[in-house]
Amino acid sequence: MTATLADRVLAGDPRGIARAISQIENDDASAGDLVARIFSHTGRAYLIGVTGPPGAGKSTLVDRLLTEFRAQQSSVGVIAVDPTSPFTGGAVLGDRLRMQQHAGDSQVFVRSMATRGHLGGLARSTGDAALVLDAAGFDIVIVETVGVGQDEVDIIRMADVSVVTLVPGTGDDVQALKAGIMEIADVFVVNKSDREGADRLVSAVEGNLALHAYANDEWRPPIVKTVATTGTGVPAVVEAIARFRARAATQQISRRRTRAEYRLRELVTERFMKHLEDEVLAEGEFGRFVDRIAAREVDPYTAADTLLKRAVSTNP
Amino acid sequence: MTATLADRVLAGDPRGIARAISQIENDDASAGDLVARIFSHTGRAYLIGVTGPPGAGKSTLVDRLLTEFRAQQSSVGVIAVDPTSPFTGGAVLGDRLRMQQHAGDSQVFVRSMATRGHLGGLARSTGDAALVLDAAGFDIVIVETVGVGQDEVDIIRMADVSVVTLVPGTGDDVQALKAGIMEIADVFVVNKSDREGADRLVSAVEGNLALHAYANDEWRPPIVKTVATTGTGVPAVVEAIARFRARAATQQISRRRTRAEYRLRELVTERFMKHLEDEVLAEGEFGRFVDRIAAREVDPYTAADTLLKRAVSTNP
Repeated sequence: MTATLADRVLAGDPRGIARAISQIENDDASAGDLVARIFSHTGRAYLIGVTGPPGAGKSTLVDRLLTEFRAQQSSVGVIAVDPTSPFTGGAVLGDRLRMQQHAGDSQVFVRSMATRGHLGGLARSTGDAALVLDAAGFDIVIVETVGVGQDEVDIIRMADVSVVTLVPGTGDDVQALKAGIMEIADVFVVNKSDREGADRLVSAVEGNLALHAYANDEWRPPIVKTVATTGTGVPAVVEAIARFRARAATQQISRRRTRAEYRLRELVTERFMKHLEDEVLAEGEFGRFVDRIAAREVDPYTAADTLLKRAVSTNP
Repeated sequence: MTATLADRVLAGDPRGIARAISQIENDDASAGDLVARIFSHTGRAYLIGVTGPPGAGKSTLVDRLLTEFRAQQSSVGVIAVDPTSPFTGGAVLGDRLRMQQHAGDSQVFVRSMATRGHLGGLARSTGDAALVLDAAGFDIVIVETVGVGQDEVDIIRMADVSVVTLVPGTGDDVQALKAGIMEIADVFVVNKSDREGADRLVSAVEGNLALHAYANDEWRPPIVKTVATTGTGVPAVVEAIARFRARAATQQISRRRTRAEYRLRELVTERFMKHLEDEVLAEGEFGRFVDRIAAREVDPYTAADTLLKRAVSTNP
């Protein structure tokens, strides 16, 4: 059955793609098999990461980018990473609405992924979903994340190019610039640039870039002003991405290696924990260690060492 | 030497505390020993997490909270988690400046921690730093994080009470509310509430809360309007925290168990990876697996299985 699903993904069947991404999102046991099967068919899509603080207009920008790439005859897959709130039931509805204009275009695929609040793994599952779209033959895969935390940094770091979207008038530009995504931006977009404070924000970003001594052959992130709602400036974003793509061959290889390393570390540790809990420890034993730590009967470092010793020597 | 440092922490010596947190931040080998030594002396401080999007005025709010708690004769330690940008050199300067008013008050300790951009581990190192302040005898420990990503959720989830700070006028309140921190808030603060849009933001949060069916004995997060720069509303935040603390005994235990579990999982997987790379694999072998994945010669799932099999059977 997984073989069939992999075949459907490789054939570009939208329902097969949707199902594959659901398996990844739900962390199904079969998801690993699927990715293993399609993996040798990946590496052809160009992966664009778009991030920025809430309210920066990323969704609108991504819509516009999609339209531009379609005008260039590129097929486009979009993964929108959207933390799910149990209050709202997540972002699926919003995405359905926003992508209605591309309904019926077989060269476009849009999908939300919920974060589900589980510990870690979001960057990997997002990466796996991007692999599915890559294997399905999309020329461009856009991963859109909301937020400015480490998780978004991890997701965006795995893209071939990172577009950081900022917005004027949040009242505290400097704080926004401290937020850990500055250093991973390949292209800055100042969206809603018709608002007051846009030039001040551009200056603040330029001021930050000026602190960094760029070598002659080093990419200096351009700052593009846009008004995504009207489309103003969006072609310049596409052009900046194309320039980055054209010149960053070495960097691209290094990004792909980073991506591979992140995946491998995530998977090995995940599988190790499963091995530890399922094969090494008795049922409920891990929980009893947790209880003893919570009760201050043992410290977490000593407990971890005890567990590791048992795990690496029990299995013959 | 570590014993001495632990003693200095337990005695509340500020320089010892600073040094201990530096060891944790730098992930020194001795940091684990230190935490193991002080661990049985922890669990007395009340841990307050404060988060929210960039520009929400969290730092100012935390300053004001600090002043309020000091007026109640509580000693207060603050950990400000601040993603470091290589452009700016991090947040240390900013924190030094903002806490000048408490200089000379031995019952206050303020410390920034940089995220360093490493994969994972931030929530644990933040938690360990909070343990140091706990062991040093601070009554209240405030952990302030900027951002709305999974990493912040992980950090805040480990607090005894979570204060989520929002700000009107970012132009897209709904998007801010989708950002994954809604469900972990015990107290909402709408800061800069003298701005246009404050009431609309309060209504939006209330609308979200209304979607959730709270049981009679369940805590319903209050929404407190503040203007942190003038101090308006800050006593109401302190009061909301006190009410939460007074009634949530069961929930508090469950939080502390979550915290213990998170720590244990992080430590076990970290130690496993070290074991794998240092004891099981030859030098450079892990990197060669990564290269083969990047070259699409092997898929990451197959590679992870291969590595796990070797790790759990090599050590006799």
